[in-house]
Amino acid sequence: MELNFRSDNEAPAAGKILDSLLEANRRTAWSYGEDQWSNRLDGAFSELFGTQTTVIPVSTGTAANSIALACVTPPWGSVFCHRGAHILTDECGAPEFFGNGLRMVGVDGENGKMVAAHLRESIRRSVGHGVHSYQPTTISMTQITEAGTVYEPAEIAALSAVAKEFQLTTHMDGARFANAVAALGCSPADSSWASGVDLLSFGASKNGCFGAEALLIFGETNLRERAERLRKRSGHLLSKMRYVSAQLLAYIEDGLWLELAGHANRQAAQFVEAVKAHPEARLESTAGANEIFVRWTPAGFAALEKAGIQFFLWPGYDDLARFVFSFQTTEEETVTLCEALRRSG
Amino acid sequence: MELNFRSDNEAPAAGKILDSLLEANRRTAWSYGEDQWSNRLDGAFSELFGTQTTVIPVSTGTAANSIALACVTPPWGSVFCHRGAHILTDECGAPEFFGNGLRMVGVDGENGKMVAAHLRESIRRSVGHGVHSYQPTTISMTQITEAGTVYEPAEIAALSAVAKEFQLTTHMDGARFANAVAALGCSPADSSWASGVDLLSFGASKNGCFGAEALLIFGETNLRERAERLRKRSGHLLSKMRYVSAQLLAYIEDGLWLELAGHANRQAAQFVEAVKAHPEARLESTAGANEIFVRWTPAGFAALEKAGIQFFLWPGYDDLARFVFSFQTTEEETVTLCEALRRSG
Amino acid sequence: MELNFRSDNEAPAAGKILDSLLEANRRTAWSYGEDQWSNRLDGAFSELFGTQTTVIPVSTGTAANSIALACVTPPWGSVFCHRGAHILTDECGAPEFFGNGLRMVGVDGENGKMVAAHLRESIRRSVGHGVHSYQPTTISMTQITEAGTVYEPAEIAALSAVAKEFQLTTHMDGARFANAVAALGCSPADSSWASGVDLLSFGASKNGCFGAEALLIFGETNLRERAERLRKRSGHLLSKMRYVSAQLLAYIEDGLWLELAGHANRQAAQFVEAVKAHPEARLESTAGANEIFVRWTPAGFAALEKAGIQFFLWPGYDDLARFVFSFQTTEEETVTLCEALRRSG
Amino acid sequence: MELNFRSDNEAPAAGKILDSLLEANRRTAWSYGEDQWSNRLDGAFSELFGTQTTVIPVSTGTAANSIALACVTPPWGSVFCHRGAHILTDECGAPEFFGNGLRMVGVDGENGKMVAAHLRESIRRSVGHGVHSYQPTTISMTQITEAGTVYEPAEIAALSAVAKEFQLTTHMDGARFANAVAALGCSPADSSWASGVDLLSFGASKNGCFGAEALLIFGETNLRERAERLRKRSGHLLSKMRYVSAQLLAYIEDGLWLELAGHANRQAAQFVEAVKAHPEARLESTAGANEIFVRWTPAGFAALEKAGIQFFLWPGYDDLARFVFSFQTTEEETVTLCEALRRSG
Repeated sequence: MELNFRSDNEAPAAGKILDSLLEANRRTAWSYGEDQWSNRLDGAFSELFGTQTTVIPVSTGTAANSIALACVTPPWGSVFCHRGAHILTDECGAPEFFGNGLRMVGVDGENGKMVAAHLRESIRRSVGHGVHSYQPTTISMTQITEAGTVYEPAEIAALSAVAKEFQLTTHMDGARFANAVAALGCSPADSSWASGVDLLSFGASKNGCFGAEALLIFGETNLRERAERLRKRSGHLLSKMRYVSAQLLAYIEDGLWLELAGHANRQAAQFVEAVKAHPEARLESTAGANEIFVRWTPAGFAALEKAGIQFFLWPGYDDLARFVFSFQTTEEETVTLCEALRRSG
Repeated sequence: MELNFRSDNEAPAAGKILDSLLEANRRTAWSYGEDQWSNRLDGAFSELFGTQTTVIPVSTGTAANSIALACVTPPWGSVFCHRGAHILTDECGAPEFFGNGLRMVGVDGENGKMVAAHLRESIRRSVGHGVHSYQPTTISMTQITEAGTVYEPAEIAALSAVAKEFQLTTHMDGARFANAVAALGCSPADSSWASGVDLLSFGASKNGCFGAEALLIFGETNLRERAERLRKRSGHLLSKMRYVSAQLLAYIEDGLWLELAGHANRQAAQFVEAVKAHPEARLESTAGANEIFVRWTPAGFAALEKAGIQFFLWPGYDDLARFVFSFQTTEEETVTLCEALRRSG
Repeated sequence: MELNFRSDNEAPAAGKILDSLLEANRRTAWSYGEDQWSNRLDGAFSELFGTQTTVIPVSTGTAANSIALACVTPPWGSVFCHRGAHILTDECGAPEFFGNGLRMVGVDGENGKMVAAHLRESIRRSVGHGVHSYQPTTISMTQITEAGTVYEPAEIAALSAVAKEFQLTTHMDGARFANAVAALGCSPADSSWASGVDLLSFGASKNGCFGAEALLIFGETNLRERAERLRKRSGHLLSKMRYVSAQLLAYIEDGLWLELAGHANRQAAQFVEAVKAHPEARLESTAGANEIFVRWTPAGFAALEKAGIQFFLWPGYDDLARFVFSFQTTEEETVTLCEALRRSG
Repeated sequence: MELNFRSDNEAPAAGKILDSLLEANRRTAWSYGEDQWSNRLDGAFSELFGTQTTVIPVSTGTAANSIALACVTPPWGSVFCHRGAHILTDECGAPEFFGNGLRMVGVDGENGKMVAAHLRESIRRSVGHGVHSYQPTTISMTQITEAGTVYEPAEIAALSAVAKEFQLTTHMDGARFANAVAALGCSPADSSWASGVDLLSFGASKNGCFGAEALLIFGETNLRERAERLRKRSGHLLSKMRYVSAQLLAYIEDGLWLELAGHANRQAAQFVEAVKAHPEARLESTAGANEIFVRWTPAGFAALEKAGIQFFLWPGYDDLARFVFSFQTTEEETVTLCEALRRSG
């Protein structure tokens, strides 16, 4: 029993993903993405999403996000995202690096979400001084958000509509896209292109892969060349790309990705109930998937730690912590956590 | 039997490397390089090289090379390398991208090697116009070279000495460093820092790993911060870095890397003999390790292809081809190739 | 009579500046800043500021600011400035371009000024997530501010002290430095290095020059090489640099710069009195120098325009306007403006 | 008498150019290129060149060249130019900086000129390795060349034709475009767009201006936005742009530019005759305009220097020197130089 609720990044890879690696490892294969696994990606994802989808496999979410943003944003363009967005606060300026000095603009919003009114106002304030100002170009939302909440398709559509109002492109950082879709019970399409998303960073590493992410470009597009150039120049065209592609194929085969995410979400839901029942601790935001933020006393958190529970005290806080559940969190671990919480009340 | 002599990039991963992945996959581990495998890298490589070594694990050689060059070269600095160097001709300007517009300067040389006199002349021609010219800053040699030849330690030392003469830093792109060390029978140190190399891109993907490379910085250094920043900003700090680090540890444990490379070299050596014995085909350069370039008639190569042999006709040529041998090339495959060559004579 | 109160950027050049151009134009001179005028800059500015000063002449404030910031800030470093700062809102990302993707961080503050508490809080929030976050590196304040207010030396010192607390460098965008010094009646030193400023963009174009600005680096420094490289690579090393340098020398000779700025300030002061005496119009901020922001009714402003007065309605507002006074605003023009305001009451 | 034959960059500004500055300095004018002089540029140059021309005024040739190249070349694109081209060897990587790491490729050629066969071969060698290689995108020729020779319209057309063969864009660095047109006696059109040039850096600073260059984009274009963004971000949108624009207008009015250049060329022609008549000294290349390269003995050059003649010994040589003639080189100075040469024979 591990009792590690620090991050789904700390989970190992799932069995079927490992199997896909073994399978891909049986013999030689062409390099630099010209192998049989990589060649199947466009087809497999097009089927999954129900629309023509161009797939650029990479090994990190930062790469997927940065290539996506740099693909559609000129150096003098700006990207609007929530002020707590990972691309804004946790990638050390990777979007700025890939995008040769593009600008990230943080937008306020409760529960980790942008809302249409704030977004529109923020874009509007940025327009109108010609060549002296950055040109609003792109919006990016994170699914699930950095606050652990989930954008409903209608919310995504509302933000995309604002983007289109100003001729902006819509990107989604789907680091935990699987958890969102599992939580929403909607189709992958509904949470993406059918709600106006143009490019999606489809995360897989956090939900059972070793290191595999896919940048998806929806619809007919002339962006493939740019995306592939950016990938090559940034060192993300792996010589043995087949191993990334094989993970991705296994990940979406037979709904494995939703099965893994659903399990994680269910563990989280049990914990949510335990927090709600607790006399002192409380949820920081409307928890929707596998990432739960809890407000509590420093003493309370200390007691949990003493009980052997690992979690993540939020930087700069002693009364706010994050608990993340993964595909491999066991029922027993979840129960132990809930018990420890109850006892530390 | 595969008969694929196209590239060692097309070989799968070795059994012991796969085992290391399985081992690292047993439970949770801290993310972003703070795991127990990553933490052991500095120690393990310092021991292997016999000097203090800072290790920056990444998943591609392009990343290792580009981070290395950008670490020591300002945007207005130039990097001198052989005119056929991979970093110059095959990375789509990744060094320029990471280095914000640094300049690569190609130096002539037989057999894929720079020689001291040409290098010195090339540096000298670049100096002396102050702020109007790029500032010569770095040299980079590839081991084994793009022509399949191997730099002797004395040759490395001679080039490094030229670099030091002008206060330049010395980098080695060691994509096939293992094959070189196995061929030379020298110590890893002799082929690197002890001959004046300051930074080494230590390749592993081509010789049995899934995707693992290590940027090594020798001696006491203040470059770690820069290297780690560049890695993060370029999206190469994997959340599950343990899987890269575990491969690297297994790769250098008990001499596995030299064992795998030695096997590949021995297969290549048999082929070299077959080429030498052939009435028409001839070696393009002094083959030293696992990569053999052969000049022959288009008809000859066509006959080989017809015999089911896969190899790489060099872009722009119909009478020059590359044959690469890997850790998994079997004796039987090598014999079959040599036979096919003999018969096509 | 021109009645143009739109911007001091719209004023012509002053007579003595023109004379300096004529003087410099008499014969040949070495190019690229190796002329006798450029060679005198370090000495002249060192004397003016009472400390060793390195001078990098350029022709725009954007160049001076961007070279300054890129000189001291790595691509993964951040620059803290007021949220309304010109470098943040009006240079289309020039600092990001010169700085290869550094980040600008806007800090709140009344009257266009940062205050120590907000600045400290803003820096603190940015620290502490290691390689994942930008590294706070630099602060920049604008003198006079974008709200037309003037930083007192004590205020500058307080902000610089916060910078030093976190080992940050202090830059001042002195586009209207002359107006500030004239208004404060202090020494140039007191408004800069003696209050902790490390680099100053010393503006001259707005106050009587054709196009001349100087990046000043105070004290012993190893930044000259970086600054000169950045200037060359960005195309700001003029072949006929003498004409910029000659302007700068004339500008600071015999206090011309303060004389011109003082005149502009005095005209502005008359207008301030007129606004204060007005029943409806009011000052938007504590006007301190030559740039006055006025809140009034759209009808009021329309009446002024009808009276032939040119001023700048602030983008996005119909009840806020800027009036700028320059060295060449005549008494008569000022009186006419004040009269027109009074009549439009 | 100055006897300065070092560079036309060292000449002062011409009288009529100075007059244009005085004229533009009479009153206020809108800033940032929205003044009446800047507004007339498109029209004036369209008339001069006989085709629709978009004008981007800047103050240095490096800015004009770099904006031009970055406008049409992606970061993964390459620019082919003569191996001695100023943009390759003397701008410290400004094109790479503006172009975010684009690559300059030097092409061999006698007399400072590229020829079609070499250019085609050089482009061909760069094509064909997909995303791993830079994408050939642009060619650039310098008029007059760095060897002082002049491209004939037919030669320009031949190079442009090669460019079009590969879908590349053609740029001309016309730092001394005036001297070329004066020498050729052709129309400005013939030496540019009518021979296939898409973008021209139209130089003026070396031929009588204080600091004024114009990037010209010929024909209908969607590049204006990109060019203006690059100009702003690089700090080249002068607040008082009228002074640059006024110079440019005066420069091309009534053929002043050709008159000034013609004078310089004629002085140079006298010197060419003197060199031809000299027993030892000889022309390094077919001198065509105002820049003459001479091979001679070190002792010979020393004698000239002793005679008070200023010229430019080529970096790295003691037997090669450059003599440049400008609009203000007097007959008397030329005669004195020729005499000194004769006497030093």
